[in-house]
Amino acid sequence: MSTSAASAQQLAAGEAAAENRVQRMKLLSGKEDYYGGIIVEMDEPMEPSAFVSILRASISNWKVQGKKGVWIKLPKELANLIESAVKEGFNFHHAEKNYLMLVYWIPDTPDTIPANATHRVGIGAVVFNEKNEVLVVQENSGRFQGSGVWKYPTGVVDEGEDICIAAEREVKEETGINAEFIEVLAFRQSHQTFFTKSDLFFVCLLRPLSLEIQLQEVEIAAAKWMPFEEFKAQPFNHNNELLENIIQICSSKKGGMYSGFTPVPTSAAFSDEKSHMYLNSSCLSHNLSKQ
Amino acid sequence: MSTSAASAQQLAAGEAAAENRVQRMKLLSGKEDYYGGIIVEMDEPMEPSAFVSILRASISNWKVQGKKGVWIKLPKELANLIESAVKEGFNFHHAEKNYLMLVYWIPDTPDTIPANATHRVGIGAVVFNEKNEVLVVQENSGRFQGSGVWKYPTGVVDEGEDICIAAEREVKEETGINAEFIEVLAFRQSHQTFFTKSDLFFVCLLRPLSLEIQLQEVEIAAAKWMPFEEFKAQPFNHNNELLENIIQICSSKKGGMYSGFTPVPTSAAFSDEKSHMYLNSSCLSHNLSKQ
Repeated sequence: MSTSAASAQQLAAGEAAAENRVQRMKLLSGKEDYYGGIIVEMDEPMEPSAFVSILRASISNWKVQGKKGVWIKLPKELANLIESAVKEGFNFHHAEKNYLMLVYWIPDTPDTIPANATHRVGIGAVVFNEKNEVLVVQENSGRFQGSGVWKYPTGVVDEGEDICIAAEREVKEETGINAEFIEVLAFRQSHQTFFTKSDLFFVCLLRPLSLEIQLQEVEIAAAKWMPFEEFKAQPFNHNNELLENIIQICSSKKGGMYSGFTPVPTSAAFSDEKSHMYLNSSCLSHNLSKQ
Repeated sequence: MSTSAASAQQLAAGEAAAENRVQRMKLLSGKEDYYGGIIVEMDEPMEPSAFVSILRASISNWKVQGKKGVWIKLPKELANLIESAVKEGFNFHHAEKNYLMLVYWIPDTPDTIPANATHRVGIGAVVFNEKNEVLVVQENSGRFQGSGVWKYPTGVVDEGEDICIAAEREVKEETGINAEFIEVLAFRQSHQTFFTKSDLFFVCLLRPLSLEIQLQEVEIAAAKWMPFEEFKAQPFNHNNELLENIIQICSSKKGGMYSGFTPVPTSAAFSDEKSHMYLNSSCLSHNLSKQ
């Protein structure tokens, strides 16, 4: 959506006063959302002064229409318009590498603008072979660098990526091992890990489909299959409650005593997007809904 | 941290060429991070031209020092500097209501700038009383408004808030019921729920500590205890795989057949921040580490 030639004729009949105000003015055009909001994606270069005029006229128009939240997405290339939007009362909402999303609340009522994303999501991948060895790596950077600690592969879940897919991808990328996701053994929520944001870290169990390690040398200094007893005995583990608990979970799992959460494909109520629900399927007596 | 009077004397001896370049120039001062990065929090108003000069001198200086990522946090009030930073090669990284974080990668190597937060986190709270009734609400807004569907209380986990705390808070806010968190029954990950972001939705089981409902009238149109059989029979549930599965999980739980993930306080490896790990504690034979 760009600044369009949407003219005053598009205004509802009978809104004569507002119509007069904007008659000679182009208006911003946007996409409506489900909550009385309007989303404008700017793409045409514009002088700040022209932008302010068109923005004011558009807000008058949306006000007449009873709109609530106004979202303006400004690509990096239109950074010259940000200051003007702020002066017109817009707040920042979120930003990605190449754009900033600003938001403005029209009504006098308290705003119901949805919160920004608050969490980064990571995975740890526990992979055992049939010799009771666990797949471990040493990293080239980060806090474990040079510590001698062998850890299970970890990584960040990409935007739009399923947790179960991310676990398989990280194992493949770091070690060359093909592995199949089995279940989430546990997860940890921690705060203030990245500026004000929180982390959700899912520890996943995978089954190897191949055994030969091929190192990804940019991120990983070394990778190997390590006897579980040796992994457990690393002094580092005893200062780390997460790892101590994971080691206990793995021991229980080996004895057939532990069940985590397995993914079940689930449709969302209001969209065609497929999603995954993770639950303790070993405890359910009946079949789950369509799988 | 503001633009400081950090002078050329702070440069390492022997960097004479760089020293000459910046001798008459103030430099931006920042906080170092663990990854060779520098974080500058701007707070003094400044003309864009002055900002460009000081920014260039600072980057030359950081380059000499071997710094990698440069983070600049600009409050909304300094929006006049954003365009200049972009022209100097900065990308947006993230934004919150009142500030924009920009980032610049100094080395020629591919950047290792950490990803922005990708997920919003929500909770659904399943609360049963001793009469096999479930606590349900009807909302004043959103997609269920006016649908006649009774649903369990749901809400967004605030920034920095524990999932288990958020579940208790939402139940209290929406219905006035005091409830105690028991476990995560299941969770769902869905994508593209808010612009490009994903959602993690945790369905939680809670035990009521009080029974008298006090409606929060802004968000909630009605709240009541509803017989579980009646809740299950709502036609809406049969078009919603998540709810169908949750109903099955609740049925199994009532028969003592289901175990979800319970929270265990866990310290992080590298900080004093307390975090919670969620795991299937009913399956673990030994005591978990310090609780």
